[in-house]
Amino acid sequence: MRGAVLYAARDVRLEQRDDPKIIEPTDAIIRLSATCVCGSDLWDYRGVNPVTEPAPIGHEYCGIVEEVGTEARAIKPGQFVIGSFFASDNTCPHCGAGFQSSCQHREFVGGAQADMLRVPLAEGTLVATPDQPTATLIPSLLSLSDVMGTGWFAAVSANVQVGMAVAVVGDGAVGLLGVLSAARMGAERIIAMSRHEPRQRLAREFGATDIVTERGDEGVARIKDMTDGVGADATLECVGTSESMTQALRSTRPGGFVGYVGVPHGVNLPGDELFYSHVGLRGGPAPVRRFLPQLIDLVCNGEIDPGKVFDLTLPLDQVAEGYQAMNERRAIKTLLCP
Amino acid sequence: MRGAVLYAARDVRLEQRDDPKIIEPTDAIIRLSATCVCGSDLWDYRGVNPVTEPAPIGHEYCGIVEEVGTEARAIKPGQFVIGSFFASDNTCPHCGAGFQSSCQHREFVGGAQADMLRVPLAEGTLVATPDQPTATLIPSLLSLSDVMGTGWFAAVSANVQVGMAVAVVGDGAVGLLGVLSAARMGAERIIAMSRHEPRQRLAREFGATDIVTERGDEGVARIKDMTDGVGADATLECVGTSESMTQALRSTRPGGFVGYVGVPHGVNLPGDELFYSHVGLRGGPAPVRRFLPQLIDLVCNGEIDPGKVFDLTLPLDQVAEGYQAMNERRAIKTLLCP
Repeated sequence: MRGAVLYAARDVRLEQRDDPKIIEPTDAIIRLSATCVCGSDLWDYRGVNPVTEPAPIGHEYCGIVEEVGTEARAIKPGQFVIGSFFASDNTCPHCGAGFQSSCQHREFVGGAQADMLRVPLAEGTLVATPDQPTATLIPSLLSLSDVMGTGWFAAVSANVQVGMAVAVVGDGAVGLLGVLSAARMGAERIIAMSRHEPRQRLAREFGATDIVTERGDEGVARIKDMTDGVGADATLECVGTSESMTQALRSTRPGGFVGYVGVPHGVNLPGDELFYSHVGLRGGPAPVRRFLPQLIDLVCNGEIDPGKVFDLTLPLDQVAEGYQAMNERRAIKTLLCP
Repeated sequence: MRGAVLYAARDVRLEQRDDPKIIEPTDAIIRLSATCVCGSDLWDYRGVNPVTEPAPIGHEYCGIVEEVGTEARAIKPGQFVIGSFFASDNTCPHCGAGFQSSCQHREFVGGAQADMLRVPLAEGTLVATPDQPTATLIPSLLSLSDVMGTGWFAAVSANVQVGMAVAVVGDGAVGLLGVLSAARMGAERIIAMSRHEPRQRLAREFGATDIVTERGDEGVARIKDMTDGVGADATLECVGTSESMTQALRSTRPGGFVGYVGVPHGVNLPGDELFYSHVGLRGGPAPVRRFLPQLIDLVCNGEIDPGKVFDLTLPLDQVAEGYQAMNERRAIKTLLCP
């Protein structure tokens, strides 16, 4: 089969790799219907996380089950399935509490920008759609594997409730789907922080009521102005830098939450500022598995269309261009067709 | 009147000061029935917060209203009242959300280790008891002004629920009252982290089911052992150092909260560790005003006795010894009688 391999910063290649095999009896092998490039892949692509040896890349996936191990009984060949980037047993205490991405037996599912993929702990990780989806649904179903689940988790973590004023920091695909999630949860006002016209347009399409183009202290001041000096009731932090986190914390009212899902890079939170802000902080790697059944229903019933974040679709063999386009912000998110 | 003044590190003196006067029409003047020394006063006393000029000290108080301004109508001379260390209007959006210690018009109420005290924004700050309390109730009522309200807020912030396993970091008066609060909220298991026998005893009296004497990594390992490797459902951080915060975060299960009320000194939280821990963080200066009506009821009905944390009672003119005893950990908390 073919699979993408990261060789060095800005050097992704599609190569022939061995077909994946069942290793553990709890494994499943799936043939991918679609995969994509994640904002967090760009940390690796840009060399922020150093590349020490060639490594298969990609962690968002959906497709048809080809083969299952003897202990993955609930998953059957032929099913269309979506899974999380963290495999989970879905039975341990952390899974039971809804934090499957902290599963006591979790395994990262890597190398998904490929024709086929081995998914460990298949029963606890994969969720099948009720029927074989039509081709038009596949981008939205694929998004549930990470980006939509992550935007949703940001909104859940920020405690978004009906009627709230919500700020969203970050106009990448996760931020945009954070907007969609907040809208779905009944937020009355959704302020998207974005400087990019195409992303602003999509944010509005997903439910943003206001756009703030300012950043840093000026961005915070604008949010305060728009909320009678109070601050946002809930803020979604979807970037992961020190600047974005500071902006999120300072934009939030006392008693509000920042839900943060941007993988932190160089973020250090000053305890005293956090203390006196009265802002709660909650987030981490999204426990996508928790949300899959609900989000699959919403997609299959046509109630949400998160697949709109894919504004570039390429065949898998153009994976390198897929990365480059996102890196240069020419694309919000690249879908790859094996 | 007499009032305590901090001159320099370890130099507290009782002096003659001018009687407080009504300055704003929203003020009240109260004659203190009791006051006390706070753990946070020790940061000043020890010189951690540098003393630049002689400053009146103390911020916990209860007593009889002597005089009110023309706009403090709900408060009447002769009432026995308790108030928070932050005066609040109790009408602004932050107060409405229950975060009176972030009131848009908040003022710190200082200089309470004295015979009399001016309390700004009296209507929004003070709560009167239904009747004149008996002398035996006064220590418990005084504790509601800060230390008990703060322990309670730690438990609220940590989201303590019926049946939970709760860890409490810090065996000062706040930590001990955090134990009492968690017990009152129905925690099934309460693990107090303490090395001091008299404090362990009081922790057990307040509802602790287990004592952990280890600290740092060993303390964390003990908590994990006691919870089948899962971690505490909720942790109360009642110290404010980098070590105590780390211990609290690492002792908590994914999805759990650390409720932190220790005023942070030199605490910097690494964003990536927090992210991957899945632990939520919430706290700050306790909005004591939110809890006063409920806690006054509990004290007056004899359901809680937080005044037990006062293990040293001195006349106000021995305020210096009151500080010294707490500083040397000879006393958990010193009550001062004007």
